[in-house]
Amino acid sequence: MSTDLSGLSINFATVRQAGSFGEIVDACLSRGIRAISPWREHVAGAGLDEAARIVRDNGLRVTGYCRGGFFPAPDEAGRRAALDDNRRAVDEAAALGADCLVMVVGGLPKGSRDLPGARAMVADGMAELLPYARSAGVKLAVEPLHPSYAGDRACFNTLKQSLDLCDALGEGAGVAIDVYHVWWDPELEAQIARAGRAGQIYAHHICDWLVPTTDILNDRGMMGDGVIDLKRFRGLIEAAGFHGPQEVEIFSHRWGARPAGEVLDTIVERYRTVC
Amino acid sequence: MSTDLSGLSINFATVRQAGSFGEIVDACLSRGIRAISPWREHVAGAGLDEAARIVRDNGLRVTGYCRGGFFPAPDEAGRRAALDDNRRAVDEAAALGADCLVMVVGGLPKGSRDLPGARAMVADGMAELLPYARSAGVKLAVEPLHPSYAGDRACFNTLKQSLDLCDALGEGAGVAIDVYHVWWDPELEAQIARAGRAGQIYAHHICDWLVPTTDILNDRGMMGDGVIDLKRFRGLIEAAGFHGPQEVEIFSHRWGARPAGEVLDTIVERYRTVC
Repeated sequence: MSTDLSGLSINFATVRQAGSFGEIVDACLSRGIRAISPWREHVAGAGLDEAARIVRDNGLRVTGYCRGGFFPAPDEAGRRAALDDNRRAVDEAAALGADCLVMVVGGLPKGSRDLPGARAMVADGMAELLPYARSAGVKLAVEPLHPSYAGDRACFNTLKQSLDLCDALGEGAGVAIDVYHVWWDPELEAQIARAGRAGQIYAHHICDWLVPTTDILNDRGMMGDGVIDLKRFRGLIEAAGFHGPQEVEIFSHRWGARPAGEVLDTIVERYRTVC
Repeated sequence: MSTDLSGLSINFATVRQAGSFGEIVDACLSRGIRAISPWREHVAGAGLDEAARIVRDNGLRVTGYCRGGFFPAPDEAGRRAALDDNRRAVDEAAALGADCLVMVVGGLPKGSRDLPGARAMVADGMAELLPYARSAGVKLAVEPLHPSYAGDRACFNTLKQSLDLCDALGEGAGVAIDVYHVWWDPELEAQIARAGRAGQIYAHHICDWLVPTTDILNDRGMMGDGVIDLKRFRGLIEAAGFHGPQEVEIFSHRWGARPAGEVLDTIVERYRTVC
């Protein structure tokens, strides 16, 4: 059994209960985990300079920065505000040296039922943000979200749809592929291969899909507890040329109620056995 | 405002609290609704002959019969049992003169993570059942289910995937298009048009997608309470050549707790205003 954990990254949402940016990093380092994916709230809590110092001094790899996006808004002022906020997220991702800025692109504007319109707002927002991100040296990783979230979180819901957008946008736009969101996709194999050929895989997130799933937001499973064939999935991703760490992102009331150390120990064990 | 309700059908799951087959039919008839979609449990309760007599004597249209499917099983005996049960469902649909037998095809067999394998079992099962259904004069309507149900209810999750299967199967295989399951699909417009060209639209189910959705199985919304653009959806279906009734299928703890009469009155009002 390998003790090398260089292929394992921890998304801070998974161990929010551990505390601050520094405390989560310490919990990871004590287990030999040297790749992380922090959220803006953690960085804001520590201060950007201090967070960047912690990353640098410990030689951490930042597999993603969470998160940009949420482009659709009911009016132009809202869309401008979203773009301004996204530019700040790009700056922070650059300061942290993150592999990518993860884009949860946003769903329907409040009161709207116009899904094609929301999708156009996302495409416009990405097109406006991308040059800024390029000049900052930050890749934008569109994360197609499970169709359950089309209304309120992300109106890009399949790999194909997201990769079509990335193709239109060009250099510096790719995808974060989270097993939870795309495991069901009948075109999974073909679209992962396509993303690999174009060098558009920027991140690989793992967790599991529980049967039954009792909460649409906060009942993701620990790897091995659900129905996703994680080894096959990883095989597809690696065959497509992506060999970056697998980033564990588990939103879960169940796991959130357990001590962070227990969660991390479980992750390490599952990473070694089922991923 | 039209008082013609010939375009409205009631799926019995929507007003399960009304009671027996006959009681649900009476509640519909008292409001001028003459199209229904019963479940096997309702027909079993009344007896098939009696249910068929009620349909015939009242000149009801049966827009669908719920349901066949659930093909995948851990072993050959299980798959044989599923096929036997499906043949009985075909016989019942024929006796009722249903427009189609709705197929909820089934998810992963217990203990399995092999989604491609489950999909192959569905394709095999459909291919074996179809000749029997053809000879009984019953159309098989594959219902692509929302990706949330890929693990446990249906591993066919997009229109494109389902229509590809129907193309391979040939005459007598089509789809039941439920707004709840497919509203998020980026290829919705193209795939509805394609289904129409091939004469593969057998049913059109309506309800709404609530934001937030608090229960993955039983929190479907009443038309107008959610984020689906129902008029646009209906326009796509009609442009594709399907002009059958819109069948209201709402699985909901909220609506299930209200009197059936109130639910039906609300449906009629919403049908006239937002569908």
